[in-house]
Amino acid sequence: MSKGDKVEVLDFWVSPFCGRVKISLEEKGVKYVASEEDVFGGKSDLLLKSNPIHQKVPVLLHNDKPIIESAIIVSYIDEVWPSNSLLPTSAYDRAQARFWTDYIDKKVFETGRSIWASNGEEREVGTRDFIEVLKHLEEALGEKNYFGGEAFGYLDIIAIPHSAWFLAYEKLGGFKIEDHAPKFSAWIKRCLKRESVAKVLADPEKVYHFILHFRKMSGLE
Amino acid sequence: MSKGDKVEVLDFWVSPFCGRVKISLEEKGVKYVASEEDVFGGKSDLLLKSNPIHQKVPVLLHNDKPIIESAIIVSYIDEVWPSNSLLPTSAYDRAQARFWTDYIDKKVFETGRSIWASNGEEREVGTRDFIEVLKHLEEALGEKNYFGGEAFGYLDIIAIPHSAWFLAYEKLGGFKIEDHAPKFSAWIKRCLKRESVAKVLADPEKVYHFILHFRKMSGLE
Repeated sequence: MSKGDKVEVLDFWVSPFCGRVKISLEEKGVKYVASEEDVFGGKSDLLLKSNPIHQKVPVLLHNDKPIIESAIIVSYIDEVWPSNSLLPTSAYDRAQARFWTDYIDKKVFETGRSIWASNGEEREVGTRDFIEVLKHLEEALGEKNYFGGEAFGYLDIIAIPHSAWFLAYEKLGGFKIEDHAPKFSAWIKRCLKRESVAKVLADPEKVYHFILHFRKMSGLE
Repeated sequence: MSKGDKVEVLDFWVSPFCGRVKISLEEKGVKYVASEEDVFGGKSDLLLKSNPIHQKVPVLLHNDKPIIESAIIVSYIDEVWPSNSLLPTSAYDRAQARFWTDYIDKKVFETGRSIWASNGEEREVGTRDFIEVLKHLEEALGEKNYFGGEAFGYLDIIAIPHSAWFLAYEKLGGFKIEDHAPKFSAWIKRCLKRESVAKVLADPEKVYHFILHFRKMSGLE
């Protein structure tokens, strides 16, 4: 890719899915513009035109061509800017990374939502489900420093942006992640020390207040 | 890969997701054993051990190592047996193929289910939703012979196995696919002439009777 590449991310500060795209670009040293979308007030024409089916962030615009769906965007970035490879090199390890990506996409945000967008028994069930998900991730991580082994890579980028929401889950669900998944908890701290992650991730306190605001607007508080 | 590879598919005859795996292996000329699972009566220990989280078919066992999730398995097969490439060569086209895979995975089976696993108004809504999905796929196909262009490839393999269920959707939903998506309908006929597809896909009449049986068991008829 030439140095004249135009790279824009249609972004929303609190979205863990947008976080994946920005961390990937940071890891690759690609210069980009993040354009904040007003996802509640009114989405831009550019977003609606770029992603007419889902009308969601993130969108990566690479020389004005749209790429959609965060995990697909991370793969695309890894293929277009191949130095500092993110996906594992063996086909089997890539399939494993994609399996856990799919698991995270199906489970983490949804079980998290059942904690923060509910009350009472529904929240209790949500909290139990979320802890179950954490335990599976703890097992997938095992004794490794990162999901792919010794180097920060694809699956770390997929998973870590969700952690900005975890303080809210802990406060609303009344539990501590490190009590249930100590290795996963240590992995979060390890990732947060990384420059790309520290630069991109939202402050968990701000996310918590965003969620409290959302709960008030929805009549949950 | 050596000729001594051991390749097994944990299979269920009517599953469009299993169909993807078998068509891919046929396209690559890889010899495999398809082991039919009793998904309602009792899953095998091998399935439960290979896919402990989802406990679902298909599983590809390659030299006894399990690979899970049908679209991920198709990518894996394409990477391990690279001759007769299935995924497009450009990163942008690959991202597009993966976007439509994700769309199909989220929409086709689920909107189909809301036709065949319901009655009355719910079925009417399901039928409208399914036709909407068809129109999006018709647009993605455009004037091309196959989703990726002139050659049968990855996205065709992802989409075509669902077509074995379409006769049941048409009969239960009271519509004809070719009235709403004539190019997509012609694409189905084109794919069905292909040896790999003809060999693998279940007979739509048999699928229809399977669904009727399921409806009776569930008290829907």
